[in-house]
Parts: sequence; C-alpha cells; structure tokens
Amino acid sequence: MSDPLRLGIAGLGTVGVGVVRIIRQKAAQLEARTGRKIEISAVSARSQKDRGVPLDDYAWEDDPVKLATRDDVDVFVELMGGATGPAKDATEAALKAGKDVVTANKAMLAEHGQELALLAEGEDRVLRFEAAVAGGIPVIKALTEGLAGNDITRVMGVMNGSCNYILTRMENANLTYQEAFDEADGLGYLEADPELDVGGIDAAHKLALLAAISFGTQVKFDGVQLEGIGCVSIEDIHQAADMGYKIKLLGTAQMTGRGLVQSMTPCLVPATSPLGQLEGGTNMVVLEGDHVGQIVLRGAGAGEGPTASAVLSDIIDIARGLRLPTFGQPADTLKTAPSANSGTPAPYYLRMTLHDKPGALAKVATCLGDAGVSIHRMRQYDHLDDKAPVLIVTHTTSRDALDAALAKLPKTGVLASDPVALRIEEV
Amino acid sequence: MSDPLRLGIAGLGTVGVGVVRIIRQKAAQLEARTGRKIEISAVSARSQKDRGVPLDDYAWEDDPVKLATRDDVDVFVELMGGATGPAKDATEAALKAGKDVVTANKAMLAEHGQELALLAEGEDRVLRFEAAVAGGIPVIKALTEGLAGNDITRVMGVMNGSCNYILTRMENANLTYQEAFDEADGLGYLEADPELDVGGIDAAHKLALLAAISFGTQVKFDGVQLEGIGCVSIEDIHQAADMGYKIKLLGTAQMTGRGLVQSMTPCLVPATSPLGQLEGGTNMVVLEGDHVGQIVLRGAGAGEGPTASAVLSDIIDIARGLRLPTFGQPADTLKTAPSANSGTPAPYYLRMTLHDKPGALAKVATCLGDAGVSIHRMRQYDHLDDKAPVLIVTHTTSRDALDAALAKLPKTGVLASDPVALRIEEV
Repeated sequence: MSDPLRLGIAGLGTVGVGVVRIIRQKAAQLEARTGRKIEISAVSARSQKDRGVPLDDYAWEDDPVKLATRDDVDVFVELMGGATGPAKDATEAALKAGKDVVTANKAMLAEHGQELALLAEGEDRVLRFEAAVAGGIPVIKALTEGLAGNDITRVMGVMNGSCNYILTRMENANLTYQEAFDEADGLGYLEADPELDVGGIDAAHKLALLAAISFGTQVKFDGVQLEGIGCVSIEDIHQAADMGYKIKLLGTAQMTGRGLVQSMTPCLVPATSPLGQLEGGTNMVVLEGDHVGQIVLRGAGAGEGPTASAVLSDIIDIARGLRLPTFGQPADTLKTAPSANSGTPAPYYLRMTLHDKPGALAKVATCLGDAGVSIHRMRQYDHLDDKAPVLIVTHTTSRDALDAALAKLPKTGVLASDPVALRIEEV
Repeated sequence: MSDPLRLGIAGLGTVGVGVVRIIRQKAAQLEARTGRKIEISAVSARSQKDRGVPLDDYAWEDDPVKLATRDDVDVFVELMGGATGPAKDATEAALKAGKDVVTANKAMLAEHGQELALLAEGEDRVLRFEAAVAGGIPVIKALTEGLAGNDITRVMGVMNGSCNYILTRMENANLTYQEAFDEADGLGYLEADPELDVGGIDAAHKLALLAAISFGTQVKFDGVQLEGIGCVSIEDIHQAADMGYKIKLLGTAQMTGRGLVQSMTPCLVPATSPLGQLEGGTNMVVLEGDHVGQIVLRGAGAGEGPTASAVLSDIIDIARGLRLPTFGQPADTLKTAPSANSGTPAPYYLRMTLHDKPGALAKVATCLGDAGVSIHRMRQYDHLDDKAPVLIVTHTTSRDALDAALAKLPKTGVLASDPVALRIEEV
C-alpha cells in the first residue's frame, strides 16, 4: 500500500463542498480503486461559515497560496474560479512547490492554459481540468485517452446549460427571451455576471480547451468567434421549428486548410439530431475522429454532484499514477494555428423586417446575389402594418460573403430592423 | 525518450488490419501523445493472404502462443476471438511470459474474465479490453476512470448494432422479423452464428463485463437473464409505437438488495428518450452514478475504424504507463453477488391471441389478478375470424408474479398463441 494522497482544497462553494463530501463518504471505495488512501490535509475559503459538511478534521488556511504550498499537501485542488488573482497565484505557487494541481477553472485555463501547462511540465507536475468542461461528462478523458488513436476532425457541443434552458423554455412555454432569462435568473441558473452565460463566454472557454486538446494547438480563447443568445427571438425559434430545426448555442471547432475554426454562436440544428433533441440544462459534446466516427456524450454540465465527480476523476488518476500532459501532449509541442474565423461554409438562416415598399424584396435579393450568396428559400409572411417580416435560407455560403451582403443591406434603405443571421449546422 | 513499445498482433481480420493501419499511419502522432514509439514486432493469423496492408516489416508466426511469448513483444494484442482455444491459450501464455495483453474478445472475458484477471494481476501485468464493449465508445474508461468517484447505480445499453438494425428496419420499412433478419444477413451484419446477435448473447457478454466493473463484482455471464429479439413481431412494434414506445434489445444491470440484476431482453422504452431515438447500427450506453447522475454515450459499436480506435486507446494507455486492474479494482477484491434475475419490478407489455369465446378476456384478467398482477390498460382489437388479439399493459409488477400468471394462462384454454411479454423501461 502506497502513502496516502493528501489534498489541499481551495474554494468551498458548491463544488468544493461536493468534493469534500465524496471523499468523506467514499474513503473505502476510493482506496480500493486507487490502492491509496485519499485524504484532505487542509482547506481554504473566503469565510469559515457552516457549509453543511464537517471541516474540523482539516487545517484551515485563509491564504490559498499558503494552502497550495503546505508540506502536507500533494495535490492542490483549485475550486475558487477567476482567470487570474488568487486562483492563478495559488496554482502557480503549487506547481513551483512540486504539487500536482486539479482545477475546475475554465476561465483560467482558457486564458492562461499554455503558460500554466508549460510551468507544470517544466516542474514535472500534472495540471488536470476534467471538471472545467461539460461538468460530469468525462470528455477530456475521452479525447486525450479514449480517442487518442484518432485524429479529431471536428468537435461540437452544447456546453452552457443555462443558455439551453432559456432556449428550451422559450420554445416550450412560448416565452420571450427576456421572460425566459428572468425565469432562469430567478432559479439561480445564471452567473453573477449573466453575460458569462448568455454571452457565450463560459461556453467559449470550454470550447477553446476542447479545441487545444483535439487539434494539438495552443489554447486560444480570443480566437473563438463569439455570439450570445440575446439575438434569438421567439420568432426565430418558431420559424426554425417550422423548418425542422432547433436553435442551440452551439460550439464548433475544426481544423481547416485556412486555420483553426472556433465558433460559439446560436445555430440551427436538425430537430431530430442528438443535439436538436437536447432539452433543458443538459450538456452534450459531439466528437468526430477519423477512425471512430462520431461519438456523442451527454450528461449534467453543472451542479455539485456532477462537477465534483469530474474533480474526483482527476484526483483518482493522480492517485493511480496516471501522469499526462495538460493538453494530452507536451505543451512545448503544441502548435500555434491561425484563426480561420470566417468558419467553414454553411447555409444560413436570415430573418429581417422590411419597409413595405415596392421592390424591397428584390433589393435584398440583389444585395445577397451581388455578394455571391445564393438563396435557397425566401418567404415574406405575416404582413404587419407597413412592415414585412422576411425569412431567407441561403445555400451553402462563406461567412465572409454573407457578412459582405449584410454590410450592404442597410444602404438599400428597405430594412426596418437589423437582420438576424444564424448558421445552419447539419450535424 | 523511453524504449519503443513492441506489439505482437494475433488475428488479422477487420479489426486487426485496422490496428495495423492506424499504427502505420499515425506513428508520429502516437509518439507525440505517448512519449514512446509504438511498433509492431510480429503478427499471426490463420493464413498469409493479402489483406490490403503491408505486413512484410513484421515477423510472422503461425502459432499465436509463440507470437505471444516472443522476446521482442511487450504487448500481446489478441484479436482472434473465441471464448477458449487459441485466444485464451495465447492470452494466458502472454501473461505468464510477462507481457501485457489488449483484447477485443468479449466472449473470453465474459466467461473467463475473473480467472484471467487474477492471472494478470498475479503476474503484475495488465489485461485491457476497451474494444470488447460497444466498439469505439470509450465506456470502460468512462466507468473505471471518468466516473470512478461514483457508486454506479445502474447501467443500461443497446449494444448489438445488428439487432437494433433489424428492429429499426422492421419499424421503418414495415418488415417482418424474418424479412429484416434476411436483409441484415445479406448485408453481412450478422455473425456466422446469427444466434450470437439476435439471441442477445453478444450483447449479454458486454453487459456482464459492464456489470462487473460497475458493481465491483466478479463477471458472471451465466447470471444474465437473456432473451433474443426473435419473439418481437411487427405487430408488437406497431402497438408499442401507438403507446409512444420503441422496442430495443436493452441490457440493464443494477445492484439490488436481493442481488445483482443483469438482463438483456427486448424492452419497450419511451420513443422520445435517447435510447428510444437510437436508430440503426449505433450503440448507446447509459451510465448512472450517485453523484454524476445520468451519462449517455453514443457511437459506432462495430466496424474496423471504431473497434481499432478502442484497441489503440488500450495500447496508448499502456505506452503511457497507466496500469489499472482489469475490472477497475484488484480482481481478488471483486465480490460474488447472487443473481436476482427476477429483476426489478416494472410494468409489462403483454400481447396474446385468444380464441373468441364468451368470457375469454375475463379468464385472462382473472389469471393475472390471481397472481397479483394488476392491469393498467387492456384492449381487444382487429377481431380476425375466431381469433382476438389482446394487448395488456400491467401496472408495475415483479417478474415472478408475471411468470406465475403466464404459467397459468394456458390452462384457461382460451389462448390461441403464446403470449409475448416485454418489460417497459421508463429510462
């Protein structure tokens, strides 16, 4: 029997408490599965309030950096959050002090992952982050280990449960975006800064991490083409449904000849596809490999139990002696790839309202045609006063051509509202 | 850089050729991901025919046992198949000679897994089998590693693509069982002995392996309650669809107070559930853990690429130094659990044809009632000549009570055909 593996846990929010709870409950199973006792030496949090789980057995540190560097800590478990500040300071201190690190911090890794991975590997330490992406779904492990014999050709995912909850509620209860947003907020589903959720930032952090692992590239969060769900109206959801689609905040990462495409934007996906059928707060990740084909993983993307389960899997790997580079291959071998943010060509859904003047529709069609965007379907409907809503589905086109057309549309003088443009992803 | 990892591959069918192909194609990536070269030293197969992949670089052995014990082999890759015979002989020889073993052989492990795991662990060797269950889906890894912080509460799966193809074709093309069977056979989807597929044996092998890993029990294939899809008629599929269900060959494993339930039988599942929506040859595994909740994994369950991808993931784990016990915890700590094969109580779908005599329906109802089986819905339909088809949906009942009722039904003298009884699983 090896020595116990001793943890220092910083951050005792929902996830931290969940991790403490599992380690207390399952001491015997964890020892049977890893061949080592897993123990908590010390904890740290902003306040010593009662959290419903006994903490008296553990040393207390106010300062997470002190916790991270304690002699009786083998693994620093960072559950504070924040891209910089105490989380990053303590992570760096832990690695430099020869500790392994397990974190659930997507923002820190998406923005400083390369730097931290280099530090970890330079110190011969591991830095693991299964809980940072898609909660309880073991997607990092699936990519770095289960599918390691493949070249990953594309990764897609619905990875923000709050956005999916809002979009699902809009459709199922016929709510406006604002009504569904308020409902989600009232239920505590949204971050203190809701833009992290509905602006797609949280999901984009996750996508950037998956892309780095999938394509052997340095994580590049600012390369993600980002659009939140605030532009989606109930009208769009109804129109999409009529055509057999659902609207999802969909992340896509793909390596192309022009560079790495990373996008996190509302998209239309077929209603009958696994992604289209995903309702409420559940997450889904779709992995495509050259040999394995398509693998779909689905599960809870947040919450105490699922996220703690993912943190535990990293701790268990370390206890078992599994030592992999942070992004699946050594950080100094990760390539930099140019961002190809115009994305891969796709059909687009366009909705706009026109002033009801003779020739208005023709002007829009001409504008699109001049930019090389060919129209698959076009429909004027629900004529209202002097405004005419128009729905257009394009043939497959580049985003550049579409943007050129959209830039010229206002000059026609026929637009009564800004156009909504959503990619159609035939997954 | 460590020494190369040298493989001996026995069996050059579809999967073996796929493994050779990936190792030749991806030498550089595999080295980047594992820090070691992965090389093939020698191969073995029944004949030296051309297989579309160059084999001249490798030594040839007619005898797999000789291959398995060669000095220049570190890992024996067993892709011959068969529960005993050369596959088992060579596996045992390899372990005793100090080689690690990777296999795709579900029959061998389901029937001799405990004995082989004990042998491997006694020799301090690893025996891995990701490819044996659900093809390219990394489900063994998800259970033993990704969800290792959980107590698994239930495992379910549709794990025989050929059966799911037949059932899907029956529904979508309105074919009889025999027509769909013949079509699948003509397409080469069925094993030489098709009973392995349609009799549920292949899928039951996989279920027994998942159960052992999930519940820390010794693998017990003969504890699986087994029923093939031959009893399912197009009539059942239509009746199920009318009630909002699909019929799937569903595996379920669950630890109960009465013991381990393992069943692989045709079941009704909600048409809108992930399992219900699974069409054609794809596999799906549903894992439920006490902390993570429900995780659904979906992907190709067979074929060269997906299965070779799974074999590679085991080889890569070994190259990276990951050394886990075969069933996730040491084989000598695996418990034996009694089989509780009456299963967990559930509602059942019953279909039978009665002779059209006064009081026939009452006799059936009485028979069920006497056994304690309560009827939720009962319907006589499509009256044909002097035969009356009857459809019954029971309230939740134990399988024992249902079997008692079914045993008494023939004595009523009103049955014109054997009843079909299918569990309804509200997944």
